[in-house]
Parts: sequence; C-alpha cells; structure tokens
Amino acid sequence: MDSETNLSVTELREAWPLLDAGERVDGYRLLESEDAEGFFEELSTQDQLELLRALPEAQRRMRLRLLAPDDITDLLQQAVPEDRAKLVDLLEPPMRREVVALLAYAEDDAGGLMSPRFARVRPEMTVDEAILYLRRQAYERLETIYYAYVLDREQRLLGVASFRDLFQARGASLVRDIMRTDVVTALGDMDQEALAKLFAAHDLVALPIVDEAGRMKGIVTVDDIVDVVQEEATEDFQKIGGTVALEAPYLEVGFFSMFKKRAGWMIILFLGEMLTIRVMAGYETRLEQMVMLAVFLPLIISSGGNSGGQASTLVIRAMALGEVRLRDWTRVLVRELAAGLSLGCLLGVIGLTAIYLRGGDADEPLIRIAATVGASVLGVVLWGTLVGSMLPLLLRRAGFDPASASAPLVATLVDVTGLMVYFTVASVVLLR
Amino acid sequence: MDSETNLSVTELREAWPLLDAGERVDGYRLLESEDAEGFFEELSTQDQLELLRALPEAQRRMRLRLLAPDDITDLLQQAVPEDRAKLVDLLEPPMRREVVALLAYAEDDAGGLMSPRFARVRPEMTVDEAILYLRRQAYERLETIYYAYVLDREQRLLGVASFRDLFQARGASLVRDIMRTDVVTALGDMDQEALAKLFAAHDLVALPIVDEAGRMKGIVTVDDIVDVVQEEATEDFQKIGGTVALEAPYLEVGFFSMFKKRAGWMIILFLGEMLTIRVMAGYETRLEQMVMLAVFLPLIISSGGNSGGQASTLVIRAMALGEVRLRDWTRVLVRELAAGLSLGCLLGVIGLTAIYLRGGDADEPLIRIAATVGASVLGVVLWGTLVGSMLPLLLRRAGFDPASASAPLVATLVDVTGLMVYFTVASVVLLR
Repeated sequence: MDSETNLSVTELREAWPLLDAGERVDGYRLLESEDAEGFFEELSTQDQLELLRALPEAQRRMRLRLLAPDDITDLLQQAVPEDRAKLVDLLEPPMRREVVALLAYAEDDAGGLMSPRFARVRPEMTVDEAILYLRRQAYERLETIYYAYVLDREQRLLGVASFRDLFQARGASLVRDIMRTDVVTALGDMDQEALAKLFAAHDLVALPIVDEAGRMKGIVTVDDIVDVVQEEATEDFQKIGGTVALEAPYLEVGFFSMFKKRAGWMIILFLGEMLTIRVMAGYETRLEQMVMLAVFLPLIISSGGNSGGQASTLVIRAMALGEVRLRDWTRVLVRELAAGLSLGCLLGVIGLTAIYLRGGDADEPLIRIAATVGASVLGVVLWGTLVGSMLPLLLRRAGFDPASASAPLVATLVDVTGLMVYFTVASVVLLR
Repeated sequence: MDSETNLSVTELREAWPLLDAGERVDGYRLLESEDAEGFFEELSTQDQLELLRALPEAQRRMRLRLLAPDDITDLLQQAVPEDRAKLVDLLEPPMRREVVALLAYAEDDAGGLMSPRFARVRPEMTVDEAILYLRRQAYERLETIYYAYVLDREQRLLGVASFRDLFQARGASLVRDIMRTDVVTALGDMDQEALAKLFAAHDLVALPIVDEAGRMKGIVTVDDIVDVVQEEATEDFQKIGGTVALEAPYLEVGFFSMFKKRAGWMIILFLGEMLTIRVMAGYETRLEQMVMLAVFLPLIISSGGNSGGQASTLVIRAMALGEVRLRDWTRVLVRELAAGLSLGCLLGVIGLTAIYLRGGDADEPLIRIAATVGASVLGVVLWGTLVGSMLPLLLRRAGFDPASASAPLVATLVDVTGLMVYFTVASVVLLR
C-alpha cells in the first residue's frame, strides 16, 4: 500500500467532527491497522456504532474483539434493535454469555457499569499461591488485577485482598487470615448516581457488585465513575437550563431531536407565563390611571427571576452533591430567608436611590414612586429566593427530580406573583 | 473508660451537620480511638482543619500522621496562615520536605493534586528484581503500587510497567525491554480541568507529573479526578445561576460570605436591568396611547430570557466538556439560528392563537394585537437564542470564563433589546 495515502490518527481526530458518516468510514480505512485499533477505542460509543455499521463483517468482528464486555454492553444498549441482534451474533460464545448477562441491567444502574472480569482467589489459598494464581490470571483480560476478590464455592464474596496486602503478608499465611472483610459492596440495580456517591464517600478505586445472596457479579472501577459524574452533571445542567437531557454531544444531536428536547419546556413555560396576561389585564385600569407604573415592570419581575434562579441553582446542586437532604429544609429556609431579605434590601435601596436621584416629571411625588419600586423589589426578591430554594425540595418530596426546578420555571412562577406584589404595593403607596 | 459514654461513628456522622464546632470536638473525643482514625479520614478538609485546631497537640500530630502528603497539602492550603505554620512544624522532617515541595503548586493545578509517593524501578533491573523491589516498596505508604515508573539516575521518566506487564513478562527480561514508552504525562502547572480531560481522553488510571526536563515529580490518580470533575461542575453550576463559586458545601458557607458571593452578580444584573427603565420611559407616550401594550410585556420579555438561558446553558456545558470549541462557532450559530427560528415560530403561533381565541374588548382589531404579540415573541425568542449561544463563545474569545454568561446575565441583555423589538413591532402593526 502506498504510504502517501495513509492518514495519521492526529489528522483524522482533528477532522472527525466535520466529516459526515461516509467520509468518516473512508478516513478510518486510510489509517494504519495498528492506529485504527487505538482510534476505534477512543471514539464515543455512538461513533463506534456508526463505524461498525459501515465496516465489512470481518472488520466488524475484529473491532468488537478489542472491547471489554462492559463496553460492548454499552454499545449494544445504544444500538437500534436490528443492529443489536447482528452484533451479538458476531461475538465469540464466552463473550456472548457475559454480554447477555450484563444486558439484563439498565444502562444507568451499577450493573450496567460493571465488568464481570475480576481477579478471584479462594480463602484457603496461601498468599504465595494467590500471587502465583493472580500472575496466571494476568494473561486474561481482567478489568484490574490489583484487587483479588476472595469467593467461596457458591461465588459469595468473603473479602478482598489488594496486591499490597498480599505483598506485605508472609507467603505462608492463608488468604482468609489476611483479607479485609469490611468490603463496601452494592447491588446491581443501584442507581449510578448513588453508586458515584458511594465511591466518593469511601474513596474507592473499585467496588464489587453482588446479588441479594451475596454472590459476586462483577466490579465497577473508579474510571467509569468519572464518566458517570460528568454525565449526571450534564443532565442537571441541561435541566436547569430548561431542556430535557440531550444524552449526546451538543453538536451531534440532530435538528429535530434537539427541537423536541427544547420545545417541551419552552411551551410549558410560555403557557405558564401567559397567566401574566390575565394578571396584567386585571390591573389595566390601574395602569390607565398611571402609565408610569409600566415603566418599572421589567425591572421588578426580572429581579424576582434572577434571585429565584440563583437560589434554585444553589439548592439543586447542593442536593445533587448530597450536601442538602430533604430533612435539612428548615435550615435551607432560614438561610434563604436571611439571604432573600438582605439581597432584597440591598437591591431595593439601590433601586429607590437611583430612581430618586434620576428625578423625573411625574405628577406623583418622586419619593413615593421610588419607595414603591424599592419596596416591590424587596418583596419580589425575597419571594423569588424563597420559591427558588423551596421548589427543588418540594419536587424531591413529591418524588420528582429537583433539577426540574429550572431557573426559567422559577422565574415564571415568580413573575406571576411578582406582578401582584408590585401592584399591591403601588395601590397602598401611590393610588389611594 | 465507661463504654456507655462511647459514641458510634454512625451516630456522630448523622449528628455532624447539626453540631457546632465545640460539640463536634466533644463528640469526636467520645469515639473509640480506632473509629476516630477512620472518621477523621472521611471528613472534609474544612472539618479536619476545624477539628485539628481544637485537639491537643499530641492528638493533632497523630491525626496528621494518618494523612497522605497530597492531603496534608490540601489541608495546609485551606488553613489560615498562622495555623499553617503551626501544622507544618508538627510534621516529621521527611514528610515536611515532601509537603513543602507540593505547596509550591497552586491548589487547582496538576501539581496540587499529585502525590510524590509512587513506585519506581530502574530500567536495567530484571522483571523478577522489579517485582521483588516493588514487594519491598509495598510497606511504604505509596499512592499505588500497581504502576512501576521506570526512572534513570536523573529521575527522568523513561517508561512505565504495570503489575500486569511485569507478571506477564518472563522473569529474566529487563524492565527496559518490557516497559511502555508511550506514556501520557503532564506538567505540574497544568490546570486541573485540562488534566481531567486528559484522563478522560486516554481512559487513564494514573498519570505521571514531570517537570520541563522530563524529571518525574509525582503521580495523580483517577480517584482525585472524580473530585475535580465534581468541583468544576459545581463551579459552573453556581456561575450559571449567577453566584460566584461558593468553594464550600452550601450549608457550611457563613452568612456573610454567602451574601458577598451572591450580591455581586445581583447588583450588576440589577443595574443592567435598570436600563429597561430608560427604554420604557422612551416609549411612555406610546404606552399612554395604548395601555394594553403593557399587558403583554411580562410574557414577551420572559420568552426572550427563557430561550436565551436555555441556549447559554447548553453551549456552556458543551464547551466545558470540550464538545464545542471556539472554532465551532459557525456550526453553533447555524444550529441556534434554526432552533431560535423554529422555537420562536412555535411560541409565536401559540401566543397569537391564544390571544385571538381569548378575545377582548380593545378598540384595536383583535387580530392586529395577536399578530403584534406573535411577531414580537418570534423576534425576541430568536434574539434570545442567538445572544445566549454566542455570548459564552465571545467570553471565551475575550479570555473570560464562558460560564459567566449566566442565564440571568443573558436574560438581562435580552430584556433591554426585547422591549425595543416589541415596541418597534407594535409601532409598525398597531400605531401608525
């Protein structure tokens, strides 16, 4: 083959996002075969699927063989049903059995992240035997050989010994006597977000997954947890911005799918915001008496929205990190009351002063107008802060995702009530 | 000691968030000494500092001895200067040297995350010698003994051999011949966010940190990267919500510090939003001609804020994940133009229809009012989407953090222009 026609991995990696599906396959085929292996492994699951679909069967089989069982499972879970069956057929029988067992777990569960390939030893082995035995297992494609899991004949997990434990022990001691038995484990159906918290709380590098009977099914390693943490944060981000989770890189989501994920909340928010028309219409005669009231409307309602969005993002993130739990709600309430009051006073005073100093030619005494705006800003900011901080907790209490208390949702709720606050204050101070 | 007065770790862990500093120390002292060690290690750095400050010197020295050099460095970086000096004095001389070297790196850099305790072997050792040598190193408190780093006499990194590599090789081969030389490394001053991307791109478990001359300084392990990823996501969350990064758990930030971190952006946004007063005042005569225009104001401006916030969160997160880079700006622009137009049309039509069907007793023909609102919603949503998606890219271009393009900042920018769009459309359609 003419080496001139070969492409370097770096060139392809650079060009990748700009290529369409056909060009990607063509480019991929121009890689040296060794480069092609490495490049395939670094692609996202979606890109791997796309490539696999386009490659001839022999190549497809070869590429699949590069992947670990948990990665193949991910791939299959994202494939369309007809592709899935074809891909499963390409697997060697032992791998097929492992993958089919893993497919039983949901993608977002601990079981969906685990690899069934872990190093196992018996409790009655000596340390020297265990090290020798692990040395033999090093040839198999295990997830890690750093931890040796001690299982009984029924595959029940009795304990764990790290390499370091084995190396530090006398060679003639029994594994049973040197293993650690206070092992943190999880069930296969544990949610991946809860699993990530378990890793963080115990500073784990690997965690065994067991079934109800204590039989070990696989291990999850911390490198997979990094992806989980990114993924969960991304979902929360998108929800807070008022989008349904995209579940794919921004530039790779098709137009129609992107539209659907964004339109849903926008419609709900728009319909919610239409309530403001009704409220405003109710005050139309007030407005006719004093058109100048309308001048301060955008300022007032945006203050409520901003402070509400600030409070809700803080509380949602704190809940996602486990820093705030449901039972902490009174502590959150007290903090946010204080924050809302002080921020409200601060902004209220700024508003009052600015309007007073700016002057104007209204019929009403300027100080009354300034006081109306100042007091309304205080009320709206306080109210926004309370709604923003309590809504995520209420949603969790009702069994929903707190991240649905997005900044725009809070703003919409606060807008409607904010108008009422403003016109009520105006009625008291200005229009008798 | 009366065992009745002992506290279990679980009890203390539960009560911890509700206790003040004094109660925490008292509670901590009631733990069995073995429990106390474990409990201390699982505390946050802030809590560890607080406890250390309250414990007598002998205990303080004991607790410090439990920690790895990178953790002690973290602790010192968060301590007030006078405590820092006292704590450094408590360290044993070898540990003190290590920690002082680590303190030279900024907390958010790769150097601030690394541990100087890694397993090292020489290139001219045989595999059997290397394994034996590692077995001896297992007694030292190394970060991991899974990877053996091959250094020359000048401490320059030549390659790496995992345990698995060593176990698979013949015992008589030389480390030099079996080591991998394509090692991914980083400099100590690499930003931790970039480091996390490096881990993700190469699926790394550990990464050696070197200086400009290629001398190995330490390793960073993937479990620290989990914390980095959480931390960076939290910062972005808080910025998007319009807060300066809290840098501590929500419930542990003091009132005044919380106020300062929230008030800054709120004041800027409020002052920005005061521009709407000027714009509104400019249209006051228009409003007097037709008070009904004010009725739709909240709906119009919130539509712009919502769509802008949605676009900016999507783009900010995609940029943080490296999915969107500066040079992708045209692709983002095209996508967001399409999204803004279609969302704008959808909401515009909903608005137009709802107002038309609802009816009213205005002097103007209803269809004109409905058309004004519909067209304004389209314009404002399109504009909001464009501002929201382009602002993060512009900020990055200018050297700022894209996450500063918070939803409330975008909303504020869009509010001012949104009013102009609305009144311009109204002038054309309604008021000739």
